Amino acid sequence: MNKDTLAINTLKINGIAAVNKANSGHPGIVLGAATMMHTLFSRHLIFDPKNPKFINRDRFILSAGHGSALLYAQLRILGLISENDLKDFRQLGSITPGHPEYGMTPGVESTTGPLGQGIAVAVGLATAETHLRSNYKEIDHYTYVLCGDGDLQEGVAMEAMSFAGKQNLSKLIIMHDSNDIQLDTPVSNVFNENLKLRMEAIGFEYILVEKNDVESIDQALKSAKLSQKPSFIEIKTVIGEGATKEGTSEVHGAPLGEDISTVVKALNWNHDLFFLPSEVTELYNDTLFKRSSEAVSNFKESEELKEFLSDNKDLQIHVNVAKNQATRVSSGEVIKFLNNNTKNWIGGSADLSGSTKALGGNGEFNQKNRKGRNILFGVREFAMGAIANGLALHSNFKPFVSTFFVFSDYMKPAMRLASIMKLPVTYIFTHDSIFVGEDGPTHEPIEHIAMLRSLPGINFIRPADENEVIGAYELAYNSKESPTAIALTRQNIISLEETSSSKIKNGNYKLIDNSSEWTLVASGSELANAVSIAKELNLNAVSISNYKGDVNWDTSKAITIEAGSTYGLSKFGSYNIGIDSFGESGEGNLVYKHFKLDRDNLKKRIKEIIE
Amino acid sequence: MNKDTLAINTLKINGIAAVNKANSGHPGIVLGAATMMHTLFSRHLIFDPKNPKFINRDRFILSAGHGSALLYAQLRILGLISENDLKDFRQLGSITPGHPEYGMTPGVESTTGPLGQGIAVAVGLATAETHLRSNYKEIDHYTYVLCGDGDLQEGVAMEAMSFAGKQNLSKLIIMHDSNDIQLDTPVSNVFNENLKLRMEAIGFEYILVEKNDVESIDQALKSAKLSQKPSFIEIKTVIGEGATKEGTSEVHGAPLGEDISTVVKALNWNHDLFFLPSEVTELYNDTLFKRSSEAVSNFKESEELKEFLSDNKDLQIHVNVAKNQATRVSSGEVIKFLNNNTKNWIGGSADLSGSTKALGGNGEFNQKNRKGRNILFGVREFAMGAIANGLALHSNFKPFVSTFFVFSDYMKPAMRLASIMKLPVTYIFTHDSIFVGEDGPTHEPIEHIAMLRSLPGINFIRPADENEVIGAYELAYNSKESPTAIALTRQNIISLEETSSSKIKNGNYKLIDNSSEWTLVASGSELANAVSIAKELNLNAVSISNYKGDVNWDTSKAITIEAGSTYGLSKFGSYNIGIDSFGESGEGNLVYKHFKLDRDNLKKRIKEIIE
Repeated sequence: MNKDTLAINTLKINGIAAVNKANSGHPGIVLGAATMMHTLFSRHLIFDPKNPKFINRDRFILSAGHGSALLYAQLRILGLISENDLKDFRQLGSITPGHPEYGMTPGVESTTGPLGQGIAVAVGLATAETHLRSNYKEIDHYTYVLCGDGDLQEGVAMEAMSFAGKQNLSKLIIMHDSNDIQLDTPVSNVFNENLKLRMEAIGFEYILVEKNDVESIDQALKSAKLSQKPSFIEIKTVIGEGATKEGTSEVHGAPLGEDISTVVKALNWNHDLFFLPSEVTELYNDTLFKRSSEAVSNFKESEELKEFLSDNKDLQIHVNVAKNQATRVSSGEVIKFLNNNTKNWIGGSADLSGSTKALGGNGEFNQKNRKGRNILFGVREFAMGAIANGLALHSNFKPFVSTFFVFSDYMKPAMRLASIMKLPVTYIFTHDSIFVGEDGPTHEPIEHIAMLRSLPGINFIRPADENEVIGAYELAYNSKESPTAIALTRQNIISLEETSSSKIKNGNYKLIDNSSEWTLVASGSELANAVSIAKELNLNAVSISNYKGDVNWDTSKAITIEAGSTYGLSKFGSYNIGIDSFGESGEGNLVYKHFKLDRDNLKKRIKEIIE
Repeated sequence: MNKDTLAINTLKINGIAAVNKANSGHPGIVLGAATMMHTLFSRHLIFDPKNPKFINRDRFILSAGHGSALLYAQLRILGLISENDLKDFRQLGSITPGHPEYGMTPGVESTTGPLGQGIAVAVGLATAETHLRSNYKEIDHYTYVLCGDGDLQEGVAMEAMSFAGKQNLSKLIIMHDSNDIQLDTPVSNVFNENLKLRMEAIGFEYILVEKNDVESIDQALKSAKLSQKPSFIEIKTVIGEGATKEGTSEVHGAPLGEDISTVVKALNWNHDLFFLPSEVTELYNDTLFKRSSEAVSNFKESEELKEFLSDNKDLQIHVNVAKNQATRVSSGEVIKFLNNNTKNWIGGSADLSGSTKALGGNGEFNQKNRKGRNILFGVREFAMGAIANGLALHSNFKPFVSTFFVFSDYMKPAMRLASIMKLPVTYIFTHDSIFVGEDGPTHEPIEHIAMLRSLPGINFIRPADENEVIGAYELAYNSKESPTAIALTRQNIISLEETSSSKIKNGNYKLIDNSSEWTLVASGSELANAVSIAKELNLNAVSISNYKGDVNWDTSKAITIEAGSTYGLSKFGSYNIGIDSFGESGEGNLVYKHFKLDRDNLKKRIKEIIE
């Protein structure tokens, strides 16, 4: 048997054996996509298992994350995980979880599973590579994706691919496991796009591989690498190839069980199901290992790149920010400081930089200026979030993205993945309350504070003024292990003496201590009124602009004030002043009054509660 | 001046005058898209202002919702709103809010503004029409959309259009206000898709109108109506046409101010800015009014259609559901009851019906079976949600959609619009906790309960067993003014004697009253353990499967138990047992134990708190 075939069979049998042993997982893609996986890894990928973090390695993203067993079988051939790891597939505490998890398994470049996002993450990786290559000539690698039919139906994938086409990220290569089957039905029952036309329409090179064999796929990958455009390779495969129910959705997500013998027989597999033939290891020694270790040896890292990659020091932000201005404006000034004082702060907005004041440095990132760190994402919020994840995953970037707070909704799935992966992405959300005013309920966040505070692992900060804005950005930029979302006002605020750029970083903190039994608790634009009323009525005041930390006050005599949902605020106070309905369209101040959040109404309401 | 020109000028001047008076709004689209608006309304649209709810009217959706001033100027010509309403544009309490709001302004068919969703809502309306037409021959109308460049960059629009192409919704006609300008830049800086190719790739008729005049647009609309496919008409326009800064992003979103005189002069407008010339009213009397009132007169409503449309009675669900099974399975049985006992229950899944058990009746909706009420949405969660909104907006449908709970993230923006519009959409979310098990953190909801409980206007229910499932569906199906989300288990549960399909509808309720000072508070799959432990330890137990309603117990001595974020639960109890990190991949029971949510651990933790 030729070594390629043996390697493919090894991937197949090891993979479906892992699924069988776990009695859970997806055998269909293992059998259908093993050939493209092997072809890519053995013939093209630059990835040295001895240096899995080598900066100039090709990146490989399994966007069809449910195919994790296939990826693990591959990583086992590379020696990155052991036979036992493979046998522990999907077991609690193993390094081979149900979907690939970044940081859990060596060789896994991104957490994937939620469909479409892997493609967008890969676009982010390719963006990072393209930008770095313009600064450091020695950077020059490909980003490969393996995706399924479901990925291509997701809007986030289409947004990201449209961006990649526009940006002409020519070193991005997507391999499409085109098996005509999805979970509920044949693909043709729900999707009849002409992929060739669509790819050409969006600026991709389209390559069709009708014969699912090593030579054909190899040829396609060679063409793709030579193309001056990003490439999309549609490879016709058979889901669950070799199983009795091959070509049907029944082999997608259920273990083969006893039918594994059908495959074993068809492939003439005479070993233990988890066996790794030495010929396969030899093949990889002669190909991937050799090619990649040479690439590592030959790589000459410039001092400049070394400096970029090792820059890990905490930054202190020194900006003279004017008082009493909208926090989005203060934010814009801090962003300029970051643009001027860092090299890894990169990002932009979903076509709202004029409003969010969030622009990256060095001009617009485009084909003429790859050094640009201001990325025009277009009106593609979800892809923007996922692309930022890819930027962060690449190496040492601190990506930021920006839109109106209400549209955090569109990006939430990417924010969740950033939180799971502990990526230091900064989300800059302006227009953070009903104070948006005239644009009305569709543009006025209500429940979004609760949505992000309840998301594990993310810092959520809603600064009251420029002091807290600076603290928020120091926390965000210096973060190593978590994303940070910053909610900012559209309207001018009242700057406070008592706010602190350092205290806010630790969580909530007391601003006014009148030793009263009553405490006013507020964040963002409501804090100024809380402080002023606390002073007048001799109460205490606490900032929950960063809501973390212990609660060191009597919550039974605390009143929370926030221009958003009161959901979650009973933790901080028994009385909650907020908005549990949708907003209104009208002049901001009038809307604020309508919801009885202006100072006069607040004072009245607070006095009523206390008395 | 010919009447068409005068009408277009009226739209333009009235529209930009409203923006100027509000000192807020978007003049660019008013000036750029007035011609297509007038052409559609005067020459094609069947919409009788005297019968704005006429069932067989054409539907018009302004997906570019920021163009509300243009729509209001048009509605004012139709007599649906007054000159004063137009003058009150964007004022608090007016019926002319910043973005069009359904239910607020006669003639507004959907709330729009969040980009991309208007297109998807229109796809839902066209789906509704296509389905109804197969049952009631007298139904036969078009759905028109006016969209901008930003709409087309949003994934949700691409998902929905891909669906429309596959379903060949030939009476859907999208007019694209193609002005080459978006907020931050020229469109070409962020988007270089070949729209003609892309539309052909997805099964749309593509028509280019290079000359922005009535006759050219009229011709294009005629062709589109004749086409056997859904149509996309790209109309080249000039944003802010006639203003000094026409053709730039500066006229997009800022009032023209004094520059309005430039436009007034260019158009030879010699009247008050809010004047409506009688020639324009006459033109509309002779066209839209005449055409549409005839359509209303000629419409013969069958008894069957009348019955369908007037069916508004509350349904009681009678199903014998087995005990101790996964609530998704109980849910599937209730859905079958609804399929068999209603005509307006329609929906499906984003390619997960095998797992969610949520299938509509009458077979698959497709070109061969338009009567089908099982819609295969494909892996397009966001579009699925927005299409459901369109179904609900059309007339008397009760749409449902289904996916894994964790992917409610992808759909959240559409759920928000459903809540704002008070649409009776039912969201069926299965796999509702870490009990998902092997699929790991990307597939295990944590913060999603908080995300939906904090969303205003939606019912969120997480039933504990088949009794509560039935109650949840009675609430959902009979809802007139709010969407309902139902979170269901993947795993089997323990059925309870004490649950109630009627009590759950009012909110939380007491299951066990041992007159203890301590109360256990739980929802969904955690309720069985709470009840069993309450019995053993002589405590009280409350179901917050529907968390609404008053809190009638001592929260200082209450312990909440929920397999999700504890955020928001301090309202119900001072002690919160839950999960404030991401999940784990492993066998469901083991993961449950890992998070100390199994009965033994729970009992121990509860005893520790009490003692």
